Amino acid sequence: MINKLVDKIKKQNAPVVVGLDPMMKFVPKHLQDAAFKEYGETLEGAAEAIWQFNKAIIDNIYDIVPAVKPQVAMYEQFGIPGMIAFKKTVDYCHEKDMVVIGDVKRGDIGSTSEAYAVAHLGKVKVGNKEIAAFDEDFATVNPYLGSDGINPFLKVCKEEKKGIFILVKTSNPSSGEFQDRLIDGRPLYEHVGEKVNEWAMQCMGDDYSYVGAVVGATYPEMGKVLRKVMPKSFILVPGYGAQGGKAEDLVHFFNEDGLGAIVNSSRGIIAAYAKEEYAKFGEANFADASRQAAIDMINDINGALNKR
Amino acid sequence: MINKLVDKIKKQNAPVVVGLDPMMKFVPKHLQDAAFKEYGETLEGAAEAIWQFNKAIIDNIYDIVPAVKPQVAMYEQFGIPGMIAFKKTVDYCHEKDMVVIGDVKRGDIGSTSEAYAVAHLGKVKVGNKEIAAFDEDFATVNPYLGSDGINPFLKVCKEEKKGIFILVKTSNPSSGEFQDRLIDGRPLYEHVGEKVNEWAMQCMGDDYSYVGAVVGATYPEMGKVLRKVMPKSFILVPGYGAQGGKAEDLVHFFNEDGLGAIVNSSRGIIAAYAKEEYAKFGEANFADASRQAAIDMINDINGALNKR
Repeated sequence: MINKLVDKIKKQNAPVVVGLDPMMKFVPKHLQDAAFKEYGETLEGAAEAIWQFNKAIIDNIYDIVPAVKPQVAMYEQFGIPGMIAFKKTVDYCHEKDMVVIGDVKRGDIGSTSEAYAVAHLGKVKVGNKEIAAFDEDFATVNPYLGSDGINPFLKVCKEEKKGIFILVKTSNPSSGEFQDRLIDGRPLYEHVGEKVNEWAMQCMGDDYSYVGAVVGATYPEMGKVLRKVMPKSFILVPGYGAQGGKAEDLVHFFNEDGLGAIVNSSRGIIAAYAKEEYAKFGEANFADASRQAAIDMINDINGALNKR
Repeated sequence: MINKLVDKIKKQNAPVVVGLDPMMKFVPKHLQDAAFKEYGETLEGAAEAIWQFNKAIIDNIYDIVPAVKPQVAMYEQFGIPGMIAFKKTVDYCHEKDMVVIGDVKRGDIGSTSEAYAVAHLGKVKVGNKEIAAFDEDFATVNPYLGSDGINPFLKVCKEEKKGIFILVKTSNPSSGEFQDRLIDGRPLYEHVGEKVNEWAMQCMGDDYSYVGAVVGATYPEMGKVLRKVMPKSFILVPGYGAQGGKAEDLVHFFNEDGLGAIVNSSRGIIAAYAKEEYAKFGEANFADASRQAAIDMINDINGALNKR
């Protein structure tokens, strides 16, 4: 699947992933009204609203954006109906040939970690059958529990030719509380990065590994170091736009081949219509605003990459 | 909810939680056959089998065990039907007045962490309504992302009088890869423990905090230190039994008041019938074997506590 991701990024010339994090406050009122009219102010109603919101955006970006990253928390909060909307979103993106990165940040140990890997990337055994549950292409994974948490994911990645992005240095202000603490003179995130590189070497695709890393756009200097620590890992870069990361900061996350990173934007794309810059589209045409914002983001990042 | 947990532990004289981690290989054949007969070898069939398995065990232990800890990964792997079985299990345990610790190990930042907190402990806003999604009493949380990941949980815990257990030192062999690394002369898990104590002080119940910690039974010496670092936090202790933790090792996780820790056993209880010790019950009476194993575990731990 890393090969497919690389191919799509090259073909569409867009090292970009759109975060499908449909908070209700982003969903235009007419979609909410329609969903509540049909299902009432229920979890089903909320799930219908976010699904229709997602669908319209996917329809407007799938030909220019290689991948989406649905944030499962935003679906999980709506319970079972929310998880159904998550699954519908994954399946619909696959219909549109998009790569799906499940932003699930799971992580446990042994058989439990294997169950998470199976849930999101693999197939579960039921009697004599093997059935896929959520069936994303990549999942994000938390490293705090060490190899016991990661190895079961590696096993499933090898079987299914799918991939993971392991949290290394997250984009949030307090990520340094633990991640930046010095161990033998170097920050924890570098030690995690080194382990990611070890794991990555066990699961190589053609040019890049199935095992990638998450490094926040908000820490470009750390991105520069981590790029070298994990040369074969794709870096998933959150924090562009809303969180303050700028295109010129992002060039250090890429390798010399112009690849090796994929930059995420969530609200900057899906809620573009609410920004002054794209207000001219109007709330009714929110998905057109999303398309324009995606084009602008791609140009912004490619512009910075071409300048270096 | 920490007050309720403490009350129930005192009343039942049982500092014990049963992990409802229904791997299919633990589910007796007659339950699998019945479920597959009704639903086929489908996710629905698997979900029905694990639900019937859980229900029988809950019916046999609710009067002697204060709490359960369903491991969501074991349900998530069966997709939407699995999550429905998870929710049914949570609700049924509440009917039986058990405290439910959702072992979800979630952790993200800002609005995303808030969505997870809402999903598992709080209520989500839908139009003018507020609706609970999964509605556990406690959730386990991963600390790697720092305060940005924890604060949204604290907010929901305060609103709902619910609680969390933050991963500090996990029970698995490789937990030391990152957690034991020395920072300013002390291991990372101690630094995490200190933060847990800070967070705990912000959310006090009567005698203990809403904010607890996870420390593996397999590391008793570390448990001794962490007990002092986090005096007001309940410690959720996995790793008893199957993973090798012994009752005499567990006394250090408790405070002098005989409280402050709750010991988990999963397969040791739910798959007791498969152990030689309880084979006399037979597979058909698996839930009776679970009850006996729970009684034996409670006696084992209380025996060790009384000896100190």
